[in-house]
Amino acid sequence: MKRPTIKDIAAAAGVSKGAVSLALNGRSGVSESTRSRVLGVASSLGYRPSVTARALSSASADAVGLVLVRPPRALGDEAFFFQLIAGMQSEMSCALLLQVVSSREEEIALYQRWWAEHRVDGVFLVDLLVADPRVELMPSLGLPAVVVGGAGHHGALASVWADDYAAMTSVVEHLKALGHRRIARVAGLASLLHTVRRDSAFASSVVDGVVVAGDYTAESGARATRELLGMAEPPTAIVYDNDVMAVAGAEVAADLGIAVPSELSIVAWDDSVLCQHGRLTALSRDTFAFGARAARALVAVIDGASPTDVEDVLPELVVRGSSGPAPAV
Amino acid sequence: MKRPTIKDIAAAAGVSKGAVSLALNGRSGVSESTRSRVLGVASSLGYRPSVTARALSSASADAVGLVLVRPPRALGDEAFFFQLIAGMQSEMSCALLLQVVSSREEEIALYQRWWAEHRVDGVFLVDLLVADPRVELMPSLGLPAVVVGGAGHHGALASVWADDYAAMTSVVEHLKALGHRRIARVAGLASLLHTVRRDSAFASSVVDGVVVAGDYTAESGARATRELLGMAEPPTAIVYDNDVMAVAGAEVAADLGIAVPSELSIVAWDDSVLCQHGRLTALSRDTFAFGARAARALVAVIDGASPTDVEDVLPELVVRGSSGPAPAV
Repeated sequence: MKRPTIKDIAAAAGVSKGAVSLALNGRSGVSESTRSRVLGVASSLGYRPSVTARALSSASADAVGLVLVRPPRALGDEAFFFQLIAGMQSEMSCALLLQVVSSREEEIALYQRWWAEHRVDGVFLVDLLVADPRVELMPSLGLPAVVVGGAGHHGALASVWADDYAAMTSVVEHLKALGHRRIARVAGLASLLHTVRRDSAFASSVVDGVVVAGDYTAESGARATRELLGMAEPPTAIVYDNDVMAVAGAEVAADLGIAVPSELSIVAWDDSVLCQHGRLTALSRDTFAFGARAARALVAVIDGASPTDVEDVLPELVVRGSSGPAPAV
Repeated sequence: MKRPTIKDIAAAAGVSKGAVSLALNGRSGVSESTRSRVLGVASSLGYRPSVTARALSSASADAVGLVLVRPPRALGDEAFFFQLIAGMQSEMSCALLLQVVSSREEEIALYQRWWAEHRVDGVFLVDLLVADPRVELMPSLGLPAVVVGGAGHHGALASVWADDYAAMTSVVEHLKALGHRRIARVAGLASLLHTVRRDSAFASSVVDGVVVAGDYTAESGARATRELLGMAEPPTAIVYDNDVMAVAGAEVAADLGIAVPSELSIVAWDDSVLCQHGRLTALSRDTFAFGARAARALVAVIDGASPTDVEDVLPELVVRGSSGPAPAV
């Protein structure tokens, strides 16, 4: 089949050659309906030169990237990321190139490849590590990036973050005011910066606080709770690093006949429909709005703005039925 | 800056020119660590020709597309889609190009553009409409596609589907066996094919059944439930088209002092952590596995296999505390 020209497409679509060019290059100046008609005609005629054209013209890749390092099965239950992605999309007129991988090495290789292949204009970096190689890598690649989460101030990178230290302190203060002294924590992955920030705030405000490591799954939340409640002097309050582990913990307590909140108080990080319906006291933030803010920050960096740190509002403690006065000794 | 050549990259990375070529073109024959090093060196030298190379070589776009037509806010609460996406990723070695749009017209324009621009090798089509223009469009574009959901047998397209008609019938049989006669349904969007399939099964098996339309949000589930429970002869059982509406319905019943299940039975479509923790009787299927199956089907179509219809296992009714014998008249 003869390769169609711009002129062929213009004739078939009934528009000018200029309009075809604007439409094919994703430029403004033509209506959406015209653009759609031109693209449809171009496709049906077998015209597919735009990737070449874009690569040569250094036009926008019209997509931003997000790589998640998680076992896919566990990821499906984490409402946090989907809310985040939905919020990002609400402020982006381009697509999100999403891939789930199993290691940090693969994640880094993917960002290098996407950038080398001009597949993305920028990337979101989530799950920041304590010493995160991505913070140095992105500026060296010249790849626009925004750190989402983290602790603010990451080298030359823009970030959108929330103060996990202050948030943890507010949770402990709430529990102390209710008379709790034996407070435990079921933490998230130890390699993540926000886990370390929360650990640090917890250690500063709780004397002899016990911390058990979890991995955000219901199984790990249940296991950690059984371990804590089986201690000689079990805690009277447990703070969990996510909603899934907290709900699993509440179920373990119910199975053991331990009443919440009269014998055990439970507080969850990152409020969700799960916490709302389980009536769990939770640290609430608007994850959707957080994602939207991250997208605005990335769009700004791609457009050439200087990287800035945007602090999200402090998560607010929403007190529900799962936290109450410490049991009398 | 002088544009680097393959030779420059080979020298800087300490590998052969052949290895650089394989690495840059995403071909097998080099280890992942070599590929990663070559891409890193190529990026740092400012080498970015791969998009051009790929467009000319008609190599794989190494991504598949998914467009969701939803208000982003509502989407964030729908665990179904995130489970589906996580399952898809578990069976894909490539990325998912994801975009949320506000109309079917935008969705279609986007698929045309992605295909014309060689951004995707194929697409997943979700939320099938009763008369869906995408079913004819995809073969005419030559864009490999798999219908996810739907009712099976969509023109020339492959599909992965579940039998919504049989599933609805199983729910009604469960309620009838418990003595329910006044059964109502809170439906999803009327434009969607699976809504119509469920409507049809409901109408066939329930005499004078009342159907109220919802849109999958908690607000619509609560509103529909208040409407139904305010009727002169309210239903003794309500079947909801998703988990979010069912949980909202259970809360309305609690607010009105109507006991579940002794005065009202509730059944939810698509079991989730929300249903599990709310102890709701629900139609359960493994959405993650469904997504994985859809990804395998799309990979097969992209690789040239003939389109087939894969029927997913029938959703299983998991009976929990929210359904019980109909109240005595």
